[in-house]
Amino acid sequence: MSAIASALRAIVGDGHLLQDPEAIQSHVIDWRRRFAGEALCVVLPNTAEDVSRVVKTCSEMGVAIVPQGGNTGMCGGAIPQSGQPSVVVAMRRMNRIRNVDPIDGTLEVEAGCTLVAAQAAAEKVDRLLPLSLGSEGSCQIGGNIATNAGGTSVLRYGPMRDLVLGIEAVLPNGAVFRGLNRLRKDNTGYDLKHLLIGSEGTLGIVTAAVLRLFPRMPATATAFLALGSLDKALDILGRLSVRFGGRVANFEVMSAGQYDLVLKTCPETRPPLPPGHAWYALLEVDDTGDANDLPRLLQGALAVDVEAGRVEDAVVAASVSQGKAFWSIRHAVTEANMRAGYSVSHDTSVPVSAVPAFNQNVEAALKAALPDALVNHVGHLGDGNIHVVVILPRDRYSGSGSIERAFRIAGEIVDRETLALGGSISAEHGIGQSNVRRLNSAKDPVALDLMRQIKSLLDPQGIMNPGKLF
Amino acid sequence: MSAIASALRAIVGDGHLLQDPEAIQSHVIDWRRRFAGEALCVVLPNTAEDVSRVVKTCSEMGVAIVPQGGNTGMCGGAIPQSGQPSVVVAMRRMNRIRNVDPIDGTLEVEAGCTLVAAQAAAEKVDRLLPLSLGSEGSCQIGGNIATNAGGTSVLRYGPMRDLVLGIEAVLPNGAVFRGLNRLRKDNTGYDLKHLLIGSEGTLGIVTAAVLRLFPRMPATATAFLALGSLDKALDILGRLSVRFGGRVANFEVMSAGQYDLVLKTCPETRPPLPPGHAWYALLEVDDTGDANDLPRLLQGALAVDVEAGRVEDAVVAASVSQGKAFWSIRHAVTEANMRAGYSVSHDTSVPVSAVPAFNQNVEAALKAALPDALVNHVGHLGDGNIHVVVILPRDRYSGSGSIERAFRIAGEIVDRETLALGGSISAEHGIGQSNVRRLNSAKDPVALDLMRQIKSLLDPQGIMNPGKLF
Repeated sequence: MSAIASALRAIVGDGHLLQDPEAIQSHVIDWRRRFAGEALCVVLPNTAEDVSRVVKTCSEMGVAIVPQGGNTGMCGGAIPQSGQPSVVVAMRRMNRIRNVDPIDGTLEVEAGCTLVAAQAAAEKVDRLLPLSLGSEGSCQIGGNIATNAGGTSVLRYGPMRDLVLGIEAVLPNGAVFRGLNRLRKDNTGYDLKHLLIGSEGTLGIVTAAVLRLFPRMPATATAFLALGSLDKALDILGRLSVRFGGRVANFEVMSAGQYDLVLKTCPETRPPLPPGHAWYALLEVDDTGDANDLPRLLQGALAVDVEAGRVEDAVVAASVSQGKAFWSIRHAVTEANMRAGYSVSHDTSVPVSAVPAFNQNVEAALKAALPDALVNHVGHLGDGNIHVVVILPRDRYSGSGSIERAFRIAGEIVDRETLALGGSISAEHGIGQSNVRRLNSAKDPVALDLMRQIKSLLDPQGIMNPGKLF
Repeated sequence: MSAIASALRAIVGDGHLLQDPEAIQSHVIDWRRRFAGEALCVVLPNTAEDVSRVVKTCSEMGVAIVPQGGNTGMCGGAIPQSGQPSVVVAMRRMNRIRNVDPIDGTLEVEAGCTLVAAQAAAEKVDRLLPLSLGSEGSCQIGGNIATNAGGTSVLRYGPMRDLVLGIEAVLPNGAVFRGLNRLRKDNTGYDLKHLLIGSEGTLGIVTAAVLRLFPRMPATATAFLALGSLDKALDILGRLSVRFGGRVANFEVMSAGQYDLVLKTCPETRPPLPPGHAWYALLEVDDTGDANDLPRLLQGALAVDVEAGRVEDAVVAASVSQGKAFWSIRHAVTEANMRAGYSVSHDTSVPVSAVPAFNQNVEAALKAALPDALVNHVGHLGDGNIHVVVILPRDRYSGSGSIERAFRIAGEIVDRETLALGGSISAEHGIGQSNVRRLNSAKDPVALDLMRQIKSLLDPQGIMNPGKLF
């Protein structure tokens, strides 16, 4: 056993240090099998003090550390970079709910707790932890914080950053930052937690957090709309926002091609509305329980819009199961695109008002450069977050060379049009390993320089999650 | 004219550099006349490039810089520290609305724009900029950002930090940080704007920002409640939050003594409810226009609470003017306390559930230490932000020695009880010059050390607003 492994085993105890190749396999390859690295060992700490001692030991021995949650990221941020054998600090033992308080509206939870377990702890006291992601069964709170996770509830509640009141974290020098603040207001100096949120484990390891809870919203109205254009979709979203205030919880759009493809390739889906329209939207309005008859109110509002020609067609779910059927169309998107060919999805955000222009520009440029490709659009319109999906038909593309070349061309086009409209090349997925080069060319040089300086300040040895972000 | 003044005049042009003692008077003394410093000159830049050149010049000459907005702060943060003649950079010429977009829900505005002008620009496109403060007629957006301003809309919309999407700022080395992001989602590295928000001008000068706008909420219901205890107030706030979701906009409480004092000393006020109850609350629920009959809904909810004995008495405003009369009680608090004696107000936040314990502990300790003093409590219950007001009767205290001594004792008691409950010694007013010593003893040493390191990294010369925060 190596010197570092014995030193770390002495900290966490027998059975909490993994070295067996089979045992560490799931910690060095990401779930989509796109990134693979090498681990000296995987260490499973039980307390913030454990983490502190692990980090100090690695620092003394000059060994790289990779913090890891549920390993559900999209950009390889939780996998050691290839060629640099690292100590993986997997947080799953630190999965305790420390405190939940419905009066404070707070949940104090350890980093290794899964999102679904944290949601359940909130529900137990009749409160809502709004963060919701496809991977919520296995992703962990620490990873959600390190990547500033987004998901489907951002329109109403904001991303993870907006839900974090306090953080406990171990810094690259092993010091424990004790910021488990439960306060709504605190103006006592720099807000250091925001430096750690979204830092992808490059500035320290989050060990626990205090999250904000909200009243549950048991009343829901779900609608499916057919729309003539993205401009009309924006108009309707604006009208609904004025009509329903903060109660508009989701507004997901998809292009006609995306809608048709889902219905064609996923036989379990049923069309809520006939094909032939340019865009479709799925929207939800939610509210506290006994407020009023929400589906009827939504029906009334949309009827006026249909009458006025602003919406081409609309249907409000008459039951919970019909609402779920609407959502099944949205949830089948990834599967449908994968079935249709080799697919890549981009994670763009632009100012909300620029979404139509972005869509047109990208569509035209992709058609010109890759005439064989199918291009679908799906996204969270209210966040300005559109995923442009490029699908290469299997009968026209073969061999990794031609696929990679086409994906590279598509990525360059999407990035160019994104930046031209003041957008972000990574709206919610982060940078990790895969987007470092893109970040370098997209980010303001002053910001990038400041990021590098802060990284060097906190982690002069460069041992904390190297190869990520920078 | 000094070398620095001539160099700066060459940047901003004739007429935009003030040296005349009378002209600079209002820039070197705060509005409450508690802090006074010396200025080498006051410079009025017109663009971010002006600010950049001013900062570079001061950096080359090793001269201290004090950024200044409306000079409405409570802690001397915008006034040169005594004994260090400084260049005051007053932002009032940079007061342009650069862009307002109701679809994006964004307002791009320069730092020197007053809050009231920014609110008006939002209203022009039928949107709401929710930040609202007593000083909104003269405070400026740059100062609101630098101090992470709070005010009366935090319960529903959060403090200034939550309203800022993007920032343009000049760093202490003169570099312009161009982060005028209009995006709701952007996960491309460290979120540097959060380092500048609330940094009180110690890390740079904010020159412009993109702020979030919301739908306007024209429907309002205002109620005044009599409550048996703070625990009961918390219970009612919780019930209303579940009943009305995010629509509870304000929940202000005051102690019986505070209520009685306002009615006694401010003859223009009328009691909405009879005296004799332990606590009073003023609450407002607001919503989009045509949603429903909000006052009737609030009346119904409160009637159930009165029936069940959870509320001792309640009245819902029957008209806008009656609602305003309720608010006039709240707005008269500062004036009433000043009329009653020598008064000092503390700016505490604790976890919401700890407010009753905080109140009891502080009340008991203050009564024991200062039996002659009157102690009132007023605050934003939903934010856990209680202002403990200590009033020394003029007939029992005279001479600054005994007053200062009593205020010091009161401050030590309030801080001790605040920290014992995991609270913050400065919920919304910041640190500035006046709270530096208190911050040093209250803040986690790891956090304080990290703050100092970041300050040294960005401002190695220590020229940017010296004597503030540290």
